[in-house]
Amino acid sequence: MPGQESSSEPQKGLLAGLRVLELGHYVAAPFCARLLGDLGADIIKVEPPSGDPVRQWGKQVDGRSLWWSMHGRNKRCITINLKSPAGCEVLLKLVAECDVVLENFRPGQLEKLGLGPDVLRAINPDLIVAHISGFGQDGPYRDRAAFGVIGEAVGGLRYLTDDPPGTSDRPPVRVGVSIGDSIAGLYAAFGIMTVLWQRDRADGDRRGRTVDVALTESVLSMMEGMLPEYGAFGSIKQPTGGGIATAAPSNAYPTSDDSWVLIAANSAPLFASLASLIGTPELVDDPDYQGNQARVRNAAKLDELIGAWTQLFAVDDLVKKLDEAGIPSTKVYTAADCANDPQYLHRAMVREVDDPALGSVLQAGVVPHIPESPGEVRWTGPDIGQHTAEVLDELLGLDADAVNSLRQEGAL
Amino acid sequence: MPGQESSSEPQKGLLAGLRVLELGHYVAAPFCARLLGDLGADIIKVEPPSGDPVRQWGKQVDGRSLWWSMHGRNKRCITINLKSPAGCEVLLKLVAECDVVLENFRPGQLEKLGLGPDVLRAINPDLIVAHISGFGQDGPYRDRAAFGVIGEAVGGLRYLTDDPPGTSDRPPVRVGVSIGDSIAGLYAAFGIMTVLWQRDRADGDRRGRTVDVALTESVLSMMEGMLPEYGAFGSIKQPTGGGIATAAPSNAYPTSDDSWVLIAANSAPLFASLASLIGTPELVDDPDYQGNQARVRNAAKLDELIGAWTQLFAVDDLVKKLDEAGIPSTKVYTAADCANDPQYLHRAMVREVDDPALGSVLQAGVVPHIPESPGEVRWTGPDIGQHTAEVLDELLGLDADAVNSLRQEGAL
Repeated sequence: MPGQESSSEPQKGLLAGLRVLELGHYVAAPFCARLLGDLGADIIKVEPPSGDPVRQWGKQVDGRSLWWSMHGRNKRCITINLKSPAGCEVLLKLVAECDVVLENFRPGQLEKLGLGPDVLRAINPDLIVAHISGFGQDGPYRDRAAFGVIGEAVGGLRYLTDDPPGTSDRPPVRVGVSIGDSIAGLYAAFGIMTVLWQRDRADGDRRGRTVDVALTESVLSMMEGMLPEYGAFGSIKQPTGGGIATAAPSNAYPTSDDSWVLIAANSAPLFASLASLIGTPELVDDPDYQGNQARVRNAAKLDELIGAWTQLFAVDDLVKKLDEAGIPSTKVYTAADCANDPQYLHRAMVREVDDPALGSVLQAGVVPHIPESPGEVRWTGPDIGQHTAEVLDELLGLDADAVNSLRQEGAL
Repeated sequence: MPGQESSSEPQKGLLAGLRVLELGHYVAAPFCARLLGDLGADIIKVEPPSGDPVRQWGKQVDGRSLWWSMHGRNKRCITINLKSPAGCEVLLKLVAECDVVLENFRPGQLEKLGLGPDVLRAINPDLIVAHISGFGQDGPYRDRAAFGVIGEAVGGLRYLTDDPPGTSDRPPVRVGVSIGDSIAGLYAAFGIMTVLWQRDRADGDRRGRTVDVALTESVLSMMEGMLPEYGAFGSIKQPTGGGIATAAPSNAYPTSDDSWVLIAANSAPLFASLASLIGTPELVDDPDYQGNQARVRNAAKLDELIGAWTQLFAVDDLVKKLDEAGIPSTKVYTAADCANDPQYLHRAMVREVDDPALGSVLQAGVVPHIPESPGEVRWTGPDIGQHTAEVLDELLGLDADAVNSLRQEGAL
């Protein structure tokens, strides 16, 4: 893992030959670009001179965000002041050299800057333009503020992440990360590759297209039978706490050392194994627990029985017992468990990466794994504007004097 | 939205020309294929004569699953008995006609059937093979059982979907859907398109590659600063209930009519607006709430104040008040709210689809939205084996007699 100097290496990897201009900030569009960059695309991230606010998010070392080290990896970071006409001019020249422009401004913001899709395509007719927004590029709510938590709530996810109705006064729970942003970013990456394939394949149509991803819609698309069942019966899918609406027992259970163990024993043979393991084989013949439907009906009572047993053991002992009995289970992993998991380490999905400023940084690996052309962490999140001179020279042929004078007129 | 008869229409759409053989069951691989099929790929779903178990999942009408109507849409469903040598022979002939084989058996299962990647590639050297599994295709845990809930727990998501430590005895909450499966399916769809682009583009390398997606890794990749921060400080990212660790106030608050409203007023001006709206403008000068850091420290107290106010109003009135004050907020949507949302309806992200057996079915639309080549629901989830004769005729030139005799020898 070389450091900053590696950006001048020749491009390689599965997506070598693809160049993406990221006009992104916060989570969604930058996450999308991370996925493409991890697989070898040349990502040019354009920031205002003040930088992407995510550079200050989360825990820091000497003012450097650890999350940014991963979020910004494999990107070339340049600054352009899009409020300056000379800055916009530079941007348009760069657009001519790119396959994709990826952005997550509020809908209409690009147009206000004089950088609407028609302007971009006048310069580069084959250009793919990918938008990520809260609610999409058209429609009555397009202009609404689009924090991730709002997208998740409108997508139906927040309502379902809760205890069953009537069992608790607590508010529904956040997933703990901006999952809606990341899912939207992943959808955008998928969408970009679909339009690229159609544009670039040997008998493709060379047409630049638009990818219009909304946070809300990305989340809604994963809600399984929620809409069809509402449409047919007017029934509203309800949250089920740690359990599953259609199978029992399946839940997280407490241990003697304050961990949780997830147990999924929701088939007849698995339930029989579990009943016998916890010393109550007679449960199998109890009409309250005979068959999955009965177990679902009495899941609360059943969970209590199981939880009373799991609390007798420390998490490692418990998982060992369950493993030996062939019952699907796992510790509910914390950051520490993920960091030390032999499977993640074997697959380099948890890896140490050299960061020139932070030293060694622990990062997630590259998903998806393509064994013949594995993705790489070529470098970690760069400084603001670290690659401005390099990129403007390489793509636009601007020498140091030209870059300096652009800087002095406030364009960069 | 024509019904079953539409499958004989000429293929169109963004991914027309792409053919995917789905050896999938349950959620992850079938979800991946749904995404590709929604954009026009020809999906041939291979099922055992008993069918994919998901056909029985969730609420049903006359024994037909409503979820399946959406999960199986745009696919051609054929049956092959992979335990019969003649069935495997048919499968291999189909592989020769496909771009992608997508599967989510347990690792090693394909090999046991005599259908390992080397066998498939002997027949079709350019073939893309996409695997989805719990833990990946190699490593010490590859053979572990891989329910979705286990993947989410090992990916770090379940631990974070909980109240803050020490504030509740309840187990951490499930997201309410198999989000890990769907995220893995989406990663696989992205991966498939990346290898297709490199294989098929005008100066591409015509090389078939492998896409190896694990549920656990797909989830882990979205955990933001969790790993870098653990690596640097040994600090374990903790759940924060309905709130956000780094910003306040942002939570779901109760209403007088038993709904929840999500309010994200976590900037100085937004907090000032909210404080004034709830009739306590003096909060802005209270040292306990001055600045985001102070508000995060006292988030519980602050949430109580806000919640006491929100409980005075019905959800619609409350959202209107917040809107007028320019404070980002939304009702926490249920299935009914999603189904009737004007933005979703405007963008056809909630749509009525004709199902030959079920009548009209409410379904989620196509994500991502590609305005120049929008995806379509061409038909809903077919019956078991509905397209067997059609596909074997069209791709392999087998007439009705040949298909019947394969059926009689138990190959289909």
